[in-house]
Amino acid sequence: MRTITAPDLEDIAFGAAVLGTGGGGDPYIGKLLARGAVEAHGPVTLLSLEELPDDAHVITCGAMGAPTIVLEKVPSGEEMLMAMRHYEAMTGKTVTAIMPFEAGGLNSCLPIVLAAQTGLPLVDADGMGRAFPQLEMETFNVYGVSASPVAMADEKGNLALVETDSAAKAEFMARGICIRMGGQANLVNYPMDGRTAKRVSVPATMSLAQDIGRVVREARSAKREPTEALIEFLGTTHYGFARRIGSGKITDIARKVENGWSVGVVSIAPFEEGLPYVIRIQNENLVVEQGGHVLAVVPDLICLLDVDTAEPIPTERLRYGQRVDIIGIRVPPIMRTPEALAVFGPKAFGLMAAYQPLGITAA
Amino acid sequence: MRTITAPDLEDIAFGAAVLGTGGGGDPYIGKLLARGAVEAHGPVTLLSLEELPDDAHVITCGAMGAPTIVLEKVPSGEEMLMAMRHYEAMTGKTVTAIMPFEAGGLNSCLPIVLAAQTGLPLVDADGMGRAFPQLEMETFNVYGVSASPVAMADEKGNLALVETDSAAKAEFMARGICIRMGGQANLVNYPMDGRTAKRVSVPATMSLAQDIGRVVREARSAKREPTEALIEFLGTTHYGFARRIGSGKITDIARKVENGWSVGVVSIAPFEEGLPYVIRIQNENLVVEQGGHVLAVVPDLICLLDVDTAEPIPTERLRYGQRVDIIGIRVPPIMRTPEALAVFGPKAFGLMAAYQPLGITAA
Repeated sequence: MRTITAPDLEDIAFGAAVLGTGGGGDPYIGKLLARGAVEAHGPVTLLSLEELPDDAHVITCGAMGAPTIVLEKVPSGEEMLMAMRHYEAMTGKTVTAIMPFEAGGLNSCLPIVLAAQTGLPLVDADGMGRAFPQLEMETFNVYGVSASPVAMADEKGNLALVETDSAAKAEFMARGICIRMGGQANLVNYPMDGRTAKRVSVPATMSLAQDIGRVVREARSAKREPTEALIEFLGTTHYGFARRIGSGKITDIARKVENGWSVGVVSIAPFEEGLPYVIRIQNENLVVEQGGHVLAVVPDLICLLDVDTAEPIPTERLRYGQRVDIIGIRVPPIMRTPEALAVFGPKAFGLMAAYQPLGITAA
Repeated sequence: MRTITAPDLEDIAFGAAVLGTGGGGDPYIGKLLARGAVEAHGPVTLLSLEELPDDAHVITCGAMGAPTIVLEKVPSGEEMLMAMRHYEAMTGKTVTAIMPFEAGGLNSCLPIVLAAQTGLPLVDADGMGRAFPQLEMETFNVYGVSASPVAMADEKGNLALVETDSAAKAEFMARGICIRMGGQANLVNYPMDGRTAKRVSVPATMSLAQDIGRVVREARSAKREPTEALIEFLGTTHYGFARRIGSGKITDIARKVENGWSVGVVSIAPFEEGLPYVIRIQNENLVVEQGGHVLAVVPDLICLLDVDTAEPIPTERLRYGQRVDIIGIRVPPIMRTPEALAVFGPKAFGLMAAYQPLGITAA
């Protein structure tokens, strides 16, 4: 059992933003909200999946919407609590543990806020092992947990509940509500017991986020190249592999809000000779190509880090002229099964590329 | 206390379609569904507002969406029951009486279906005294009843619940869900007790629908001009006034599905000399003008009836060449107060026209 205290939040928000692979919401806002909650309510207990009681009633939570909107419609920190209370009121069930539904700068921090507010333990795991733009793209769904009911709240206290027999349909309907809530909403979904959570979750992603933050911070202190340190560290984790795909300067960024997502294309001119790297975005970085050749693709993580500080840059903060390292991180095995790839592999995003896990040579 | 049996449904569907003022859903589909339910489950008890127990737990119900879509996505008759069961499951309350939220060809019949299925009494009243395109346009809302929770179901068993502090916001969110349910959804909303229902409802609209149907049927049998008989009869009801605004042939109909509604404009060339009548539609007929002069406008009813049979033609069945009488019907006093006009008068539809009740000379 670990405890999350205020000083931990800097590392967690940093590492979660790396795992957010461009999405998952702004880490700065996430960190401020989590710090406010932990300072007001005290530290949060972080349970590993092993420590989670089998009979726990776990809900997962996070924000849904276009990350570009979060920058202007900043959460107060009360919305998720309203969503959870609505879930409890509607189902008559009592939540006993909280899990993030994804890893990301904002979406790893909002569950910390909720855990602090309620005094409930936080589970050191999530359902994406990264951020994905759609709520059916969860290992929970892949391995048989229903997304429903989905309880939703916005900052004005508007509440909604969605119940469907498919996670994809729940996504479609919740996205419609999210758009009508102003393009950003707070969700509680995928209720499950502790025994199930152990089977279907990507383990240890909150502590991984914290470790990522720590490794980069220590490398900076030691005057070591932080991105190198990060890549080396990731090779030792259950994710197992990371590499620098390339480095360059952002020369173009086209981005818009469409159907409730931030979608766009980023072009990055390499520092060395060569064709530009082109990254397609749907909230998160989905695929990076060079000259039509796929260098990395979902579900593997594609992270844009500032070349000097290794600071992860969310897609909504990408700007012309930024100098970035493009880092690819392989997802852990639970996210690379055929059934997982059917839900969040390239085809699920309409991409033609075949998935070839980073660091593994094609047979 | 009255009873609705299968032979009554012809008159009810006919009259409800007149009250639907072009909207409220297709009466033929409504009649078939109601007949099937009454034949399977037995007759329905119709309670006047006076007969309704003060402590009754009343919900109101109906279909939401574009009537054009109902013609292709015909309800099975089970959807409203799913919505009501969802309402009960989520709130823990037990419904004891059912009221239509509007009068209309489909939406007066679906509550009959639900009453037959559940064995619950139907309340002889509704919240619009006609059909309106938006769910905040209810006397329930005008006189202080919350629209929430709004329970929704579609034909695939997808369920949703919306809870807001304003009926307009509930409309906005429910419309978003409705669109994602395929443009047509089934709603249970405006829960209230019997005492409240007596205060906030437009009374006796189900029996009025049946009387309208009977009057027209009897006029036809007596070889009397049915529209004349209808107008004369309406003058004796609590609506108090109706008149023939004009007659002509439909020369143009522009119609599309937009934001979840059927919207359009109909042009009718008068049989006599004169400029065309122009009717604006948002599911229902909103305003009829001639040469820029307003002849009738919401909330008063504008009904297009076949010149020979007095059959009401819903907006989704309007076609080039149809020969129609344009009938205006004044709404009862509960719908003409300043607070009512603020919610469903011309301005609420973005219309510039001032409301002048039909049959009442401007002061």
